[in-house]
Amino acid sequence: MSPEPFQLSHVAPDGRARMVDVGGKPVTHRTARAEAVVRLGARLLERLKTGGGERKGDPVETARIAGIMAAKRTAELIPLCHTLPLDVVDVQVSFSKTSLRVESFVQAHHVTGVEMEALTAASVAALTIYDMCKAADKGIVIERVRLLSKTGGKSGDWKRGKT
Amino acid sequence: MSPEPFQLSHVAPDGRARMVDVGGKPVTHRTARAEAVVRLGARLLERLKTGGGERKGDPVETARIAGIMAAKRTAELIPLCHTLPLDVVDVQVSFSKTSLRVESFVQAHHVTGVEMEALTAASVAALTIYDMCKAADKGIVIERVRLLSKTGGKSGDWKRGKT
Amino acid sequence: MSPEPFQLSHVAPDGRARMVDVGGKPVTHRTARAEAVVRLGARLLERLKTGGGERKGDPVETARIAGIMAAKRTAELIPLCHTLPLDVVDVQVSFSKTSLRVESFVQAHHVTGVEMEALTAASVAALTIYDMCKAADKGIVIERVRLLSKTGGKSGDWKRGKT
Amino acid sequence: MSPEPFQLSHVAPDGRARMVDVGGKPVTHRTARAEAVVRLGARLLERLKTGGGERKGDPVETARIAGIMAAKRTAELIPLCHTLPLDVVDVQVSFSKTSLRVESFVQAHHVTGVEMEALTAASVAALTIYDMCKAADKGIVIERVRLLSKTGGKSGDWKRGKT
Amino acid sequence: MSPEPFQLSHVAPDGRARMVDVGGKPVTHRTARAEAVVRLGARLLERLKTGGGERKGDPVETARIAGIMAAKRTAELIPLCHTLPLDVVDVQVSFSKTSLRVESFVQAHHVTGVEMEALTAASVAALTIYDMCKAADKGIVIERVRLLSKTGGKSGDWKRGKT
Amino acid sequence: MSPEPFQLSHVAPDGRARMVDVGGKPVTHRTARAEAVVRLGARLLERLKTGGGERKGDPVETARIAGIMAAKRTAELIPLCHTLPLDVVDVQVSFSKTSLRVESFVQAHHVTGVEMEALTAASVAALTIYDMCKAADKGIVIERVRLLSKTGGKSGDWKRGKT
Repeated sequence: MSPEPFQLSHVAPDGRARMVDVGGKPVTHRTARAEAVVRLGARLLERLKTGGGERKGDPVETARIAGIMAAKRTAELIPLCHTLPLDVVDVQVSFSKTSLRVESFVQAHHVTGVEMEALTAASVAALTIYDMCKAADKGIVIERVRLLSKTGGKSGDWKRGKT
Repeated sequence: MSPEPFQLSHVAPDGRARMVDVGGKPVTHRTARAEAVVRLGARLLERLKTGGGERKGDPVETARIAGIMAAKRTAELIPLCHTLPLDVVDVQVSFSKTSLRVESFVQAHHVTGVEMEALTAASVAALTIYDMCKAADKGIVIERVRLLSKTGGKSGDWKRGKT
Repeated sequence: MSPEPFQLSHVAPDGRARMVDVGGKPVTHRTARAEAVVRLGARLLERLKTGGGERKGDPVETARIAGIMAAKRTAELIPLCHTLPLDVVDVQVSFSKTSLRVESFVQAHHVTGVEMEALTAASVAALTIYDMCKAADKGIVIERVRLLSKTGGKSGDWKRGKT
Repeated sequence: MSPEPFQLSHVAPDGRARMVDVGGKPVTHRTARAEAVVRLGARLLERLKTGGGERKGDPVETARIAGIMAAKRTAELIPLCHTLPLDVVDVQVSFSKTSLRVESFVQAHHVTGVEMEALTAASVAALTIYDMCKAADKGIVIERVRLLSKTGGKSGDWKRGKT
Repeated sequence: MSPEPFQLSHVAPDGRARMVDVGGKPVTHRTARAEAVVRLGARLLERLKTGGGERKGDPVETARIAGIMAAKRTAELIPLCHTLPLDVVDVQVSFSKTSLRVESFVQAHHVTGVEMEALTAASVAALTIYDMCKAADKGIVIERVRLLSKTGGKSGDWKRGKT
Repeated sequence: MSPEPFQLSHVAPDGRARMVDVGGKPVTHRTARAEAVVRLGARLLERLKTGGGERKGDPVETARIAGIMAAKRTAELIPLCHTLPLDVVDVQVSFSKTSLRVESFVQAHHVTGVEMEALTAASVAALTIYDMCKAADKGIVIERVRLLSKTGGKSGDWKRGKT
């Protein structure tokens, strides 16, 4: 461990929270992928997969739309985040035996990255799934909200290693 | 397991997503507690705890404020959630050896519960911590976003068991 | 026709726009239904009805969600509208030979009516349909945005006559 | 008519709603004009035209402001719409014998068009007129919400033909 | 001066910012009046008073609408403020020889006061006047943003003394 | 003084409020500084300076965060303001014997200036201080909300003279 405390980008030397000044940064192509996992029992999973009616997948579609819309409003929620126009937001949902996995993808051409937009999309989509299932099971847990990869910007590309 | 698919409160018989009609419900005292855990390395934890300057705790304070403000806007983020006036939102942050834990508390007197508000507060506070630390470590994971307890309403009180 | 100009509720005697003071009004059960019609060619209608893939009805579901979410934010859009907690918002979509019809239903227990919420839900759902179809046909027209009925409040119940 | 269903830009091959990826598109000069018509009786029209007080035109001015402000928030309302900085929004109101016509104009230099912003401005301005007149006449109908023209972008210029 | 520091309602004993819990408070009739003064030169004042065209008072009307809309969104801006439904918001503008004065009035029946809503309405209306005049004079100053009176609630009525 | 009324940039020749068309303007580096002064008694000032607990400065930090977040939403509040991505927003608070001073700084690379963003940040931070102190003193006054300097754009640099 370092003997002296290192400086966080979002904290001024006197301890105040601050936005990072992105004024000098070049516009580059940015992408980010993130995920969130919702642990559900088998019965709820089955219910979400089939939709239980003629038109299938609707609860999942509601969660996808919520995630896309939340990504566009990330800078309203995260205090030190920059407002930026996004090229595209995509949210996909897949199922395993015991859980539903949300994966988000965000892309922009801008002076700052889109990691927070991807994480916000995945979080809000997962919360929306919880909302629709909470009458059946309040104990549902959202886990592994995390960045999967990012590209572009001064810090370059980053990809999560195997876990 | 039930042989026939059961019905989700937020899904109509034909599969469409829907809001629950709370028109017939009585106004009762509602509370909810939720948490989110942010796994950070020791160095980042130390940095967040000390603030590294004269005024301590500021990054944590930023996250708390973000969580409180997000709770008030839950119905804008979660499509089928009801807008309701909240009596109070509180967000607290505590530290263990390897992680930071956000705990939220929300209270209202209304016809519908405040679980989503508590979960949204905890999620957005945790995402704000990630935002301020991501330049130092993109691999930080948010875990265990979950309800701890709720009181009030027709479904009564609920408390998470030991895990 | 009246020889003297009558007074609009939202316009003060000196001509200024104003909110109606609802402070003295009793809380009553309020409902409103509204509709909007989107004129589409047969080919687009067919496309929206079938969804064209495994999961059906998704463009329509996106429009329904947009309408529900917009209803909750009506007072942010319409300057002199009151903020109020809604019991339920529902948006349904049906098809005829040449058009898609959005019908919205809003309910609240409050001192003011929910007509604007119902009209906003129908309008935004219709605009969302336009957004998803505009690459195929920019000439699509939204027609007949109108209230169908309302109940509750001092002015009592109202129902549109046959047209 | 095509024997196979064609693909909507906002619907993925598997039926999911999606944003169009505008990442590869060049920045061009974009404009859009839209309109909405509010059918009002002669008495209400007269009342709106004169303002009925010393300061004229105020209800109309409120509607214009509402339309301008709504255009700036289009991407919050329409789920698959892109956030973009607008160069200008203008909303004008004119009167005929039986109706009030809202015409909106939006301009931007961006990778995506501004049709939805123009249509949202016209719709919200028209809804605001309804709101101010509804105490006098709940039966007012908004008609002909439609694009008049657009310029710029890969799909080029488009102008509505005579109807 | 007190020898010991007294406690602010919005600050917890450990120094954290917090919302005041209004859960135990009774619903009462609340009002608040606030003002803001915009110092303008005589020429700008004349311009704002006459409107300079056929339809008079429009810049002032824009500011009034902005103030009313901002009051409804106070809880989104002020972190520890409660969301509450307002009965009415009114914003009036008057002129003296060297300045324009905005006066706001807000009323609600609720468990918490509306002082912040009145102050936010007055502030945003004054900022809107600045926005419309800044091309002519960047040096315009907004002064005396302050509460004039409030009624209702446990702390009772309050009225500003002569100054 | 001019014998004929001059034209405001935000008012059309016929008196309607309007956005300024920034479509033809070049992208330049823009900055703005603004301030707001909150007159507080000595006791409240002392309380805000020390924080009164282990973690110091938290009420001030809450106000700073509120100001930063408000700057990003300026175009939602001020009707004729343009939406634009900001490079950085900073809000600082300092103390004199009888008052607290908020100073904001905003920077962007865009076709339009950031004066309104700086003024909105300062105003909302000052209102947040009022909110946290109002239980102790409702008579607190916010004064001197004003631009300190701006750089960039066609109108060039501007700096407030000594007062």
